[in-house]
Amino acid sequence: MNLKEMVGIKAASYVKDGMTVGLGTGSTAYYMIEELGRRVKEEGLAIIGVPTSYASKEQAEKLGIPVKTIDEVNHVDLTIDGADEISADFHGIKGGGAALLFEKIVASYSKQIIWIVDESKMVNHLGKFPLPVEVVPYGQEQLFRLFQEKGYNPSFRMEENEKLKQTDSGHSIIDLHLDCIEDPLALDEELNQLAGVVEHGLFLSMVNTVIVGKETGPEVIENIR
Amino acid sequence: MNLKEMVGIKAASYVKDGMTVGLGTGSTAYYMIEELGRRVKEEGLAIIGVPTSYASKEQAEKLGIPVKTIDEVNHVDLTIDGADEISADFHGIKGGGAALLFEKIVASYSKQIIWIVDESKMVNHLGKFPLPVEVVPYGQEQLFRLFQEKGYNPSFRMEENEKLKQTDSGHSIIDLHLDCIEDPLALDEELNQLAGVVEHGLFLSMVNTVIVGKETGPEVIENIR
Repeated sequence: MNLKEMVGIKAASYVKDGMTVGLGTGSTAYYMIEELGRRVKEEGLAIIGVPTSYASKEQAEKLGIPVKTIDEVNHVDLTIDGADEISADFHGIKGGGAALLFEKIVASYSKQIIWIVDESKMVNHLGKFPLPVEVVPYGQEQLFRLFQEKGYNPSFRMEENEKLKQTDSGHSIIDLHLDCIEDPLALDEELNQLAGVVEHGLFLSMVNTVIVGKETGPEVIENIR
Repeated sequence: MNLKEMVGIKAASYVKDGMTVGLGTGSTAYYMIEELGRRVKEEGLAIIGVPTSYASKEQAEKLGIPVKTIDEVNHVDLTIDGADEISADFHGIKGGGAALLFEKIVASYSKQIIWIVDESKMVNHLGKFPLPVEVVPYGQEQLFRLFQEKGYNPSFRMEENEKLKQTDSGHSIIDLHLDCIEDPLALDEELNQLAGVVEHGLFLSMVNTVIVGKETGPEVIENIR
């Protein structure tokens, strides 16, 4: 069993009968969804899944997990998702897979959030991982220039065919190569107030529990801040 | 000559040769664009127009005004646009015509902004006019419920065919019936940080000059704050 599979299975054990569960996106979340599918089939676990991407939706449906959109449920009891970076004070960067908008919307309506990662994602300060900013195509070149002027080292997310990456909502993604984000809360506010910015990958003060895959077994870290 | 035509023509007189001009949307902006078209044709005025909607783009092109998108220009020298409400301290509500996103993007990159309105738009406090919030369709029912819980009296903007209104960017619009917005800056921040909110109709500390259509002639009010 690899480390990703190990934390995926560990995280799935937090899911109880009757829960509405936010289903994250990515290679670690994949194993969590697989395990939930197994429990639905073998243990008769009754849950509703709220996927954060088309990929997770497809996987869940194939496994026989009933799925609904965020608008079809009252709230989400627990969301289990990956993260690209988690700081010592439990802030995170997400969006490497370009699903940040739906992920943040589902997270916003979740009572509990678990992030599942490998050790390499645990950092002192956020910023080595490029921060994705989802933007409206109209005005995106102006935003790009603004980010350049601010020294944020922007780059447009591209597809393999050298076209601009389009998100599930038809927006573009500008990655900011910041190296070290000294004040994530200030940057969050700054990006939120820019016209044309739909969402960004800073997930601040959201996570309750982090499960880290280690050679010695999954380590559970509770955010008691 | 009606009052809207009068302020439209007055506002167009602020446009100088060589300027890049943001072209607003709506019934008053219509006359301003007509007058710019006349000056281009009769006076040889050389300008570039940056329209804030498809309607304004079409009108400008028909009149022979060269147009570019916000991404094709360096900056905008002057934007002339309407407003749905302007408070005594020069904050505004825009978006009755559902063009708020492009209008705010163009405004963000404008060195000078003129709003042209009739007297009925001048108010002490913002809020009698419903505040438009442009939202991502995914999660819009959750946002609607959140606005209900906050007592913001939300309603979805509808088309005549009883379908949800779709903006030029494929988003929905939720109108907030607030009656009186006591602290526009706090509401601006609150809306900006909500996942799924793309933009909203509060245009704060943006306008430099307001031209009000009055029976006695256009009144020019400078924002010297």
